[in-house]
Amino acid sequence: MCGIVGVIGREDTTEILLNGLEKLEYRGYDSAGIFVTSEHGEGHLVKEKGKIADLRAAVGSEVQGTLGIGHTRWATHGIPSDHNAHPQVSANGRFYLVHNGVLENYEELKAKYLSNVTFTSETDTEVAVQLVEYLVDQEGLDVLAAFRKMVSMMKGSYAFLMIDQTQPDQLYVAKNKSPLLIGLADGFNVVCSDSLAMLSLTHEFDELHDGETAIVTSDHVEIFDPNYQVVERKPYKVSLDADAVDKGTYPFFMLKEIDEQPAVIRRLVSTYLGERDDYRFDPQLIAKMAEADQIYIVAAGTSYHAGLAAKQIVEEVAKMPVAVELASEFGYHLPILSKRPFFVFLSQSGETADSRQVLVKMKELGYPSLTITNVDRSTLSREADFTVLLNAGPEIAVASTKAYTAQITVMALLAKALGQKLGTDDGKIDLRSELSLAANAMQTIVDNKEAIEGYAKEFFETTPKAFYIGRGQDYFASLEAALKLKEISYIQAEGFAAGELKHGTISLIENGTPVIALITDQATAGLTRGNIKEVEARGAKTLKIVSENLAESADQLVLPAIASVLSPLLTVIPAQLLAYYATIQRGYNVDQPRNLAKSVTVE
Amino acid sequence: MCGIVGVIGREDTTEILLNGLEKLEYRGYDSAGIFVTSEHGEGHLVKEKGKIADLRAAVGSEVQGTLGIGHTRWATHGIPSDHNAHPQVSANGRFYLVHNGVLENYEELKAKYLSNVTFTSETDTEVAVQLVEYLVDQEGLDVLAAFRKMVSMMKGSYAFLMIDQTQPDQLYVAKNKSPLLIGLADGFNVVCSDSLAMLSLTHEFDELHDGETAIVTSDHVEIFDPNYQVVERKPYKVSLDADAVDKGTYPFFMLKEIDEQPAVIRRLVSTYLGERDDYRFDPQLIAKMAEADQIYIVAAGTSYHAGLAAKQIVEEVAKMPVAVELASEFGYHLPILSKRPFFVFLSQSGETADSRQVLVKMKELGYPSLTITNVDRSTLSREADFTVLLNAGPEIAVASTKAYTAQITVMALLAKALGQKLGTDDGKIDLRSELSLAANAMQTIVDNKEAIEGYAKEFFETTPKAFYIGRGQDYFASLEAALKLKEISYIQAEGFAAGELKHGTISLIENGTPVIALITDQATAGLTRGNIKEVEARGAKTLKIVSENLAESADQLVLPAIASVLSPLLTVIPAQLLAYYATIQRGYNVDQPRNLAKSVTVE
Repeated sequence: MCGIVGVIGREDTTEILLNGLEKLEYRGYDSAGIFVTSEHGEGHLVKEKGKIADLRAAVGSEVQGTLGIGHTRWATHGIPSDHNAHPQVSANGRFYLVHNGVLENYEELKAKYLSNVTFTSETDTEVAVQLVEYLVDQEGLDVLAAFRKMVSMMKGSYAFLMIDQTQPDQLYVAKNKSPLLIGLADGFNVVCSDSLAMLSLTHEFDELHDGETAIVTSDHVEIFDPNYQVVERKPYKVSLDADAVDKGTYPFFMLKEIDEQPAVIRRLVSTYLGERDDYRFDPQLIAKMAEADQIYIVAAGTSYHAGLAAKQIVEEVAKMPVAVELASEFGYHLPILSKRPFFVFLSQSGETADSRQVLVKMKELGYPSLTITNVDRSTLSREADFTVLLNAGPEIAVASTKAYTAQITVMALLAKALGQKLGTDDGKIDLRSELSLAANAMQTIVDNKEAIEGYAKEFFETTPKAFYIGRGQDYFASLEAALKLKEISYIQAEGFAAGELKHGTISLIENGTPVIALITDQATAGLTRGNIKEVEARGAKTLKIVSENLAESADQLVLPAIASVLSPLLTVIPAQLLAYYATIQRGYNVDQPRNLAKSVTVE
Repeated sequence: MCGIVGVIGREDTTEILLNGLEKLEYRGYDSAGIFVTSEHGEGHLVKEKGKIADLRAAVGSEVQGTLGIGHTRWATHGIPSDHNAHPQVSANGRFYLVHNGVLENYEELKAKYLSNVTFTSETDTEVAVQLVEYLVDQEGLDVLAAFRKMVSMMKGSYAFLMIDQTQPDQLYVAKNKSPLLIGLADGFNVVCSDSLAMLSLTHEFDELHDGETAIVTSDHVEIFDPNYQVVERKPYKVSLDADAVDKGTYPFFMLKEIDEQPAVIRRLVSTYLGERDDYRFDPQLIAKMAEADQIYIVAAGTSYHAGLAAKQIVEEVAKMPVAVELASEFGYHLPILSKRPFFVFLSQSGETADSRQVLVKMKELGYPSLTITNVDRSTLSREADFTVLLNAGPEIAVASTKAYTAQITVMALLAKALGQKLGTDDGKIDLRSELSLAANAMQTIVDNKEAIEGYAKEFFETTPKAFYIGRGQDYFASLEAALKLKEISYIQAEGFAAGELKHGTISLIENGTPVIALITDQATAGLTRGNIKEVEARGAKTLKIVSENLAESADQLVLPAIASVLSPLLTVIPAQLLAYYATIQRGYNVDQPRNLAKSVTVE
């Protein structure tokens, strides 16, 4: 969360910053700000509560310069407001700083060094910039030394960009645990949290590692390791096309991304499954997985739900036991592990701080790890032993859709490769054929959106609450379906094991409460239908989403039948669309829901 | 769910039925009914939507007789209404039947045999009684043969009591999967779902087993096995006192049961922990557990939450890995099990159908099992290899309180015994001393209810939603805390891992949304406080419940410190009281929340 941009050496600095922030808006949109200064040190600070569009409207034509930094915020300390927005400024107006991350010891540092300073915000960030001023003015350090000392005193996560207004020819940069990239171009350089922000200007980037600092000028980049020794690093090329970050004719990114899912599945099959049913994963990865006695999937949010679905697939196909763990819990309350664990981290962005702290700990314990992510060279990708990419194309809408189905698909492909290697796959599931069926079935659902739009209106337009229920894979899909609805429509939806609802939560069912039942599991279809009767007896209005082999005449949405264990790939599609349409009907912004941000880089 | 009573041989039949139903009301209170007939076959049927008090008001003075049956309903098929209430009557008005359970094949039987019959209800039950009439009238069977044939045709769960109005000197009885007891007395006999209903009349009971039928007259009970051979069975004595089922001076059972918790903990320590730190469990039980490589705790609802807390205790104390499984999911979607699993079933009532189907399957697989329950001779107790009793006294309020803390306490005692046996207990936790601290601390909390009543008013009086957050044991306690609030106050409360909330659900936080944070875990207290800041930045109103060793000045509720892993014993108490007071403030019935029933005997 929070997005950072910086640019040095361009006349159109302001426009580059605003453009970049618009591309990073998925990372937070509580408030935003820029600081731009000319070569002569004439500076302009503009900050605005709200979205980047609000900031753009507030930026006057006088805001011009050749050096600038910008920030879009997801609040962690202090409410969203102009004064809590970044850049934060030191008391004498000399230093301007933007920050992504959370400083853990800011109160302590504030009490120790800055008790005489009047603060203008409630942010942890302001302490960083005031501390630089203190170290320059009170301890007589030069600016570089003061910046380095401030960074060395900070505990927590940060990506910092700082401008000293008296030196408008350089940018101070530091990074720890929060992502930061330096984009290299001809006659100017840029800095950003995500290469997406600057793809229209350059495809060549230097990556910063934790604990590193850098000085960036218009024609030079110098990176220092934690001991201030210069680091030589080869830039890498980002192959992504700037157009991939455009929503084209779609009203929202989310709808585009929902529609892309059949293509993503097909692409994953053609990437990872050869013509002769040979799986194109790194053989060392499969060998390492095969040595394990248990796989631990660590994830959060939607990726956690993908992990739950993946567990069933891996256990059924490869007969390898799988535990699925919430990243924020696992690292701090380690259960008794199996003897030879193998860790799989599922993270769309590859930056999820909760997952990363687990990866760091598991590496210390010497356990092998794989990151499955959509973002090449992301932190989790760099730090795990292996990476498998989702190749889903940038996912911009905050509510994740195609990453979920891509994660399940990749795990299914891995399960097959593992089952082949172990000789445990009984061949019951012809994955190529099933995934092809799944992609076609997805296509059929997205091609018939009108029906789903109608059901969204009927069931969700005004309700404050809703429940999804199912058993087995339908339970795990219910968790994800409910989360989609929560995230963007603000309906308090809960996903439940159909049999568990009666053990308490059924008390919330009132006349007209929507209950959406997913039924794709033959063994328990009858029991789930019993649970539907129970909630109907209490007034619930039920919507049944059923595979065609189990359908009855009153079922409203009938889906093509695929292998039961892969059913979340299909059942989630109407759920995504129901959430999408409900959100529009209720008048909210689909792509940028309140309080959320895409890449969750705080714990 | 659903409670059944029957009596034969008493002049005050009507009063006995109504009294018994009042005692069984925890099992369901959508609607209720009785049928009473005199020796001359003069019958009275009274049914009423609503509670037993409504039924009582509807019963006129003419409703008298010497044979009667009664029923209190938790609807599974058909809405709560007079016509769906039991007893159900056959078309010619000759046969009256009450039923607890779910008939799976009733639609099939209805189509096959009863297409000419006009049904007056939407219940599965009516098919049973109409079928008896059909078998007598159309197939010429005598009543006993017709009753037996009907029973043999039924798939599903049932406890049936049937009256043939032309034979007012006997009661037809059958049982499968739903509980049923026959109470023996001098000159009369009674039948009931739970001995609680009849304790004022007798303490001597015959238990019926699955598949058995019985004929009960005023001075005789004849039980038949599935082949209609007479079964000789010794009655057993229920030691429970009828007074234990009385709420005394308390306004609600729930408050009484909350207050009893310190005493329950002390009683469990004195029952299961000897003076010399010898654990008084069946040595064979501990030996069997010690042979296992993993313990599987299977449960639902509040018991599931107790299982989650118990996992941490067992893993910390005995170093034995534990998996906690939702009963309704586990049996139908078996994960890959460890090599030597040991199954623990947590069920307050010992009748939970979801757990029972798992127990039946695990027994078929030959795995050892333990039931931890509050009800001696309950189904799960009889069928598991071992039983450990909670000794918590009858829990009448539908929302479970003392059973939760008792389950955790018993699991802690078992963990110690297991750790002793395995030699894995490092002795870090002095359980006798910690449980004594816990009981004292509980006492302090329940003695200071006023503060909690005030917080209930401040946080819950009008809100439609709320969140509990915590990490580690505080997360699992949050799940239970949220469930309590849901069950009785109808606030849609969710318990969340404090770090997981931001991965989607934080979008539901609005200005004034109550977020209650539990903080008893030193390792993550700072992180949880970070999460509190995040929700506060979005307008949440936060209530902090913190152990004294981690407390800060602004924390509202400070609890005595006990061993961190036992903290759910304490944190749940204010949560129970908050739910209790919120419910009263919002004007609802604490003991009998809508849609719920205590003993969940359907899947």
